[in-house]
Amino acid sequence: MACLEDRLKACEEKIADLMGKEKTMVAFSALAEYGGAHGPFDGDTTLVYNTLIANVGDAYNTSTGVFAAPVAGVYCFILSYHAGGHQIAKLTLTKNGEPIVATSDHKSDADTADNGGNAAVLELKRGDQVYVRLAAGAHVWAGNQHTSFSGFLINQM
Amino acid sequence: MACLEDRLKACEEKIADLMGKEKTMVAFSALAEYGGAHGPFDGDTTLVYNTLIANVGDAYNTSTGVFAAPVAGVYCFILSYHAGGHQIAKLTLTKNGEPIVATSDHKSDADTADNGGNAAVLELKRGDQVYVRLAAGAHVWAGNQHTSFSGFLINQM
Amino acid sequence: MACLEDRLKACEEKIADLMGKEKTMVAFSALAEYGGAHGPFDGDTTLVYNTLIANVGDAYNTSTGVFAAPVAGVYCFILSYHAGGHQIAKLTLTKNGEPIVATSDHKSDADTADNGGNAAVLELKRGDQVYVRLAAGAHVWAGNQHTSFSGFLINQM
Repeated sequence: MACLEDRLKACEEKIADLMGKEKTMVAFSALAEYGGAHGPFDGDTTLVYNTLIANVGDAYNTSTGVFAAPVAGVYCFILSYHAGGHQIAKLTLTKNGEPIVATSDHKSDADTADNGGNAAVLELKRGDQVYVRLAAGAHVWAGNQHTSFSGFLINQM
Repeated sequence: MACLEDRLKACEEKIADLMGKEKTMVAFSALAEYGGAHGPFDGDTTLVYNTLIANVGDAYNTSTGVFAAPVAGVYCFILSYHAGGHQIAKLTLTKNGEPIVATSDHKSDADTADNGGNAAVLELKRGDQVYVRLAAGAHVWAGNQHTSFSGFLINQM
Repeated sequence: MACLEDRLKACEEKIADLMGKEKTMVAFSALAEYGGAHGPFDGDTTLVYNTLIANVGDAYNTSTGVFAAPVAGVYCFILSYHAGGHQIAKLTLTKNGEPIVATSDHKSDADTADNGGNAAVLELKRGDQVYVRLAAGAHVWAGNQHTSFSGFLINQM
């Protein structure tokens, strides 16, 4: 009897583990909505995407623009922007202060609108912070649902 | 004995539940292929991405351009476009008639080609519809595998 | 007793199967970093994204630029590029020699910088190869973390 009971107990523990991992959902999307052009500013600033599309797991903060990983794992992040052409545009996906991927455009009188974006897969520890920095002197178009930041947990570790 | 049997039955039910969720795969990618410039049209229209790259779960319809969520869950959508510069370009990812994220470019004689895209994470109920609207007066380049729409289930709810 | 033991054995096997699938993590991100403009070259070449951001599962090769699927499944790939405007830009996501999605821009004196990207969901067999081709005569900006290639396993099959 002990043998069967031990095996059953092991099964129960593994199932609880699998169900716990399966329940961990982390996924967000947010827009920068400030009624139009946002920037340029004197220094580098964190772009606060202030309008939520989704925030499953509540890991993205619309007041600070910072995503903090609630569990260790592999995450994917995607950013897209629109900007007028009369100023530079430059956004950098940043992890704990370290630049990961960037997207930018030159100033141009001839081309009145710019689009850009980038994406990255990141291994994060619990508490790691991921956000987007807007470079000094750069602007983006923060209106009409054009400039967004999304992320989601691919696999818990 | 009843006790062991009850525990075993509970295990079996949880495993069936886990395996069912694990089997639910929803992921598609499609291209708009109309041999070149597509649009402009007088009114807003749904952009029908008519050429499949993948359609696991068969939730995207190549005749209507509409993705219908087969299960409640968290999904990710990504769209990318190319367009000539001599007309405006504007695409809006739309959920049940509600605009979610957009990407656009101005008309320009100087810049002869435009690229853009956007992405969003969405919480969907079963049956929710997601598609891309091409704005009145806008065009995209629907050729050479440049203009695409993809989506996939991140987590079933 | 045989009955309970058989059922328990079936549970153990299914749990092992679920845990095996759950442990299969495949996700990478890499940058093309060659100190600035990369190309144009006479013929089509594979763009070697030579600088890793992440390589969970070790399926992307930074020497060849080739991702080889370690397990059959549904994968997502995303590419983003920046380029100067004085040459054409053209990248094609390619699976075993077959073009899947492309992103490009014209040569332009007026627009000094171009951005573009594309994404696709692909069903892959074990060993299928996915990579990005840079077209003959095209260039990209391979510097400052602007030009990236990412992919991850959505579901194992």
